[in-house]
Formats: sequence, structure tokens, C-alpha cells
Amino acid sequence: MPFAYSRTIHFADTDAAGVVFFANYLAICHEAYEEALGAAGINLKRFFADHDVVVPIAKSEAEYLRPLACGEKVAVNLRVQRQSENSFEIHYELVRLGPPAKAAARLRTEHVCIDAATRARKALPPALASWVAAG
Amino acid sequence: MPFAYSRTIHFADTDAAGVVFFANYLAICHEAYEEALGAAGINLKRFFADHDVVVPIAKSEAEYLRPLACGEKVAVNLRVQRQSENSFEIHYELVRLGPPAKAAARLRTEHVCIDAATRARKALPPALASWVAAG
Amino acid sequence: MPFAYSRTIHFADTDAAGVVFFANYLAICHEAYEEALGAAGINLKRFFADHDVVVPIAKSEAEYLRPLACGEKVAVNLRVQRQSENSFEIHYELVRLGPPAKAAARLRTEHVCIDAATRARKALPPALASWVAAG
Amino acid sequence: MPFAYSRTIHFADTDAAGVVFFANYLAICHEAYEEALGAAGINLKRFFADHDVVVPIAKSEAEYLRPLACGEKVAVNLRVQRQSENSFEIHYELVRLGPPAKAAARLRTEHVCIDAATRARKALPPALASWVAAG
Repeated sequence: MPFAYSRTIHFADTDAAGVVFFANYLAICHEAYEEALGAAGINLKRFFADHDVVVPIAKSEAEYLRPLACGEKVAVNLRVQRQSENSFEIHYELVRLGPPAKAAARLRTEHVCIDAATRARKALPPALASWVAAG
Repeated sequence: MPFAYSRTIHFADTDAAGVVFFANYLAICHEAYEEALGAAGINLKRFFADHDVVVPIAKSEAEYLRPLACGEKVAVNLRVQRQSENSFEIHYELVRLGPPAKAAARLRTEHVCIDAATRARKALPPALASWVAAG
Repeated sequence: MPFAYSRTIHFADTDAAGVVFFANYLAICHEAYEEALGAAGINLKRFFADHDVVVPIAKSEAEYLRPLACGEKVAVNLRVQRQSENSFEIHYELVRLGPPAKAAARLRTEHVCIDAATRARKALPPALASWVAAG
Repeated sequence: MPFAYSRTIHFADTDAAGVVFFANYLAICHEAYEEALGAAGINLKRFFADHDVVVPIAKSEAEYLRPLACGEKVAVNLRVQRQSENSFEIHYELVRLGPPAKAAARLRTEHVCIDAATRARKALPPALASWVAAG
């Protein structure tokens, strides 16, 4: 089930070119991921601070289609897809709300569940696996 | 009139100590300032990218009372106060929503309106002056 | 000619997982790009604040190989490659210095020169074109 | 003994006003603090990720004197001062290197050592106490 997150572009997101710094598109999409996990009942504080089983991002890709300025409203449409029993990918479409609404970026992240100590792959924790399966 | 802004703590706000990085409390309060200006009808894109008349922050003070973790909800209560015809200060109370709600930080920023080229003080632009007067 | 940039991982780069936030790998590589431009005699202040001809990043890709913690030293090896008369790509290898040194990430960014007003593609400005040609 | 740290202003430090975002002056000063601790032989990875004894910043103050643009070089002069057996303060002067060099900001941070679980004040760990005493 796709998940939608929206927020306003903040001054802190921008750089001296007057628009959102390219790395901050990734941070904005990560917020959408956090909201989606929270909506699925996952405790974010525990999930992201766990030092045993961690689910780092292994890859990211971004296509920047349109600049975004302070005060503009954006929506992030997120769709998760299972890759294997210990990995998944998320597709994000970042839309600058209008009228007219315009696609502003497309991103993809790959997430792999590992044991923090050994760095060996591990099966996704149950709550996360359910969220991915429902994706 | 006090203004209230609320948002969730994001993973990107945190640092390796597991909680919000001290400089990011300032960024979160700045978001509340932006929302308050936007609610007062000020065009943020134009206001913050203006290269003629600028209203930089001259001073900031922060008292950090409580750590904030990813996923926690906070409210920022903001109150603006005129200092002179070309300056004002903003008081922010950052509250970690509960139950029970707990004060997490208190901040203050001083803003001075200047000519970007000469750095000489200038009277606040009318829309900003109205917002400050209504504060 | 490859360019090497090195710096220490700062506390502000990290997140609650204890290591560098994935979006900040992009920011660190952008620093290397800035240093390379500066070393080629390009005025960064003017280059990045130009509001007529801009060279935004159109795509980014990152492969995260190893976590990075506060205090660790990294080197970024950068190599630029021409794509067309108005675009180029940069490859970055981020190495955690040792001993032993270990590859920590590989990134790629695509840059396209455009007219800021019309968003039409434009030839790279001469100094930038020289830097790319020397790449 | 004062400690000096220098670095170049990065594009990621700036905002749409074309200069360093006010909260990022704090982050830059924190880098100087990290370098000073590292130079005193303190393991930063362990120090900042310790979840038992933590030394959070209780207060910050900043006076912003001059804007800083991408590519400009700054020096941070840092001086630490003991407040009590479990607290200290740091004074930072941020100088934009010239010629001519110009003071760009003055900051102050207060640090209090506490037990992470109980939030009760604790004596500074020995290595940190030595660094403060040598300040």
C-alpha cells in the first residue's frame, strides 16, 4: 500500500543556490520512511537506535527533476518492495504541490538487515517484515 | 499572539549520542518562525532569498532541558517582541509532547533588519513590522 | 587527473545509529567537489550563488559499504568525466583511512549546466569546461 | 591553552540567503571542540557514543557578527574554562580569514556531565577533567 507524507520546505533545507541542497532530498525521503514505519506501529526510537540488529541503507539513487524553494509544499509518495528475506527497496516520488502539482524528484533506497557486530545478513525483524509484506 | 508549531523528531535531527544534536534545536525553532511568517501572509521564498533587505539573526541563546529522540513529538510555542524599529526578538519554548508534556528547551533569537549591501540598519518591511506588532 | 580530499568525520555528520547519516555521504563528496573546483581557480562563492547560469545535480547514486564514526579520517578520491558539452559526471570513492584503509562508499553525481530562468541546457562556462577537460 | 581549528565554509553550510545558516555556526564550533578533544588524546567515537556517562550541552549563546560564504576560510579559537567539578564552559571566536581577518561570531557553550540513566550530575571523567584543567 503506498504511503503519502507531506511537509513544507524549510530554510535549513536550502543552500546558497536558493533551493533544496541535493543531499537533503534524501533526508526528506527518509522522513517519509520514518512516518511510514511509525504508522505501522514500529517504535522509531528503538528501531533506529538498536545496536544489535541494524537495517542500514546499502544503496541510494536520486533523480532531481525540479528545484524546491523555502515555503513550498511537497508530498512524498513511498512504496516498499521486498528484495529477499533480509532486504527491501523503497521507491519515493517527491511531488511539489501546486497547482499544478509537478514531480520534483524520484528516489530509491535499498535496505539490508544485518547483525551490527558481525555485519552478517539477518532476516528482517517481524514488525518490519510485516510492513514490507504489506507494501 | 503566541504561535504554536508542532512536528516529529526526525532521524536526521539526531546524532551519535542518540538524541537531537544541540544545533538542530535552533533549526527546529527556525521552522516555527517560518510557519508563523507564512501564516501571517509573508512569502517565504521571497523573504528569505531577498538579497537587498535582509533580516539576519544577530544573537541566539538556548537552554537545553531534555534530550529528544527520533519519533518523539514536539511543539514549539513562539512569541515575538519588538526591540526597536529595525529589530525584534523571538522567544521559543520547545515542549516534548506526552503525556506528560515536558519542557525540552528554551530559546531566544534577535533579528535585525539591514541593507544587504551597506549592512546599515533599516526599518522592518511593512508585512514583517505588522507581524511583529501583532506578536 | 584524480583529486583527493580528506577530512575527519564530525559529530554533526552522525545520527542515532552512531554513524554517518546516509545523506551526509553526499554532502561530504560535495565538499570534495568544491575543493577540486577551488583548486582549479574557480571562485566558489560566485559559482554556487550565480542565479543566471546554474549547474545543478541531475542524478546521484551511492553505494554504502561501511559505516563511519565520529573522529574517523576519510579520504575522498574524485574523478570527473565529460558527458556532453553541457554535462559531466563525477565519480567519488570514499575511503576510511586506516591502517588498514577500507573503501567506505562509492558515489556518482551527474551535473547539467542550464539557464536558471528558462531551464534550457547551456554550454559549461569556460573555467568549468577546462576543469572537466583536465579531469 | 587556547586551541585553533580552521576549515573552509562548505556549500552545505549555507542557506538560501547565500551565507552560513545561523545554526551551523554552532556545528562548526562543535567541530573545533571535537578536534581539541582528539588532540588531547580522547577517543571521540567512544566519548560521543557513550551511553552511560554523557556530557550534553546545557546552554549555548551565539553572537553573529558577519556573514560567511561558501569557499571562505575560517578559524575557530577555542578556550575552555572549568565551572564546577561536573561542568565547564567553552568560548569560541570564529574569525573569517583575510586579509584582512575579521571576527565573524562569538559563541559560548556550557557542558554538564551526567549519568545518562538517572540524569544526576557526575564528576567529569579523568581525561576530560585533565583537558579542562589544561584549558
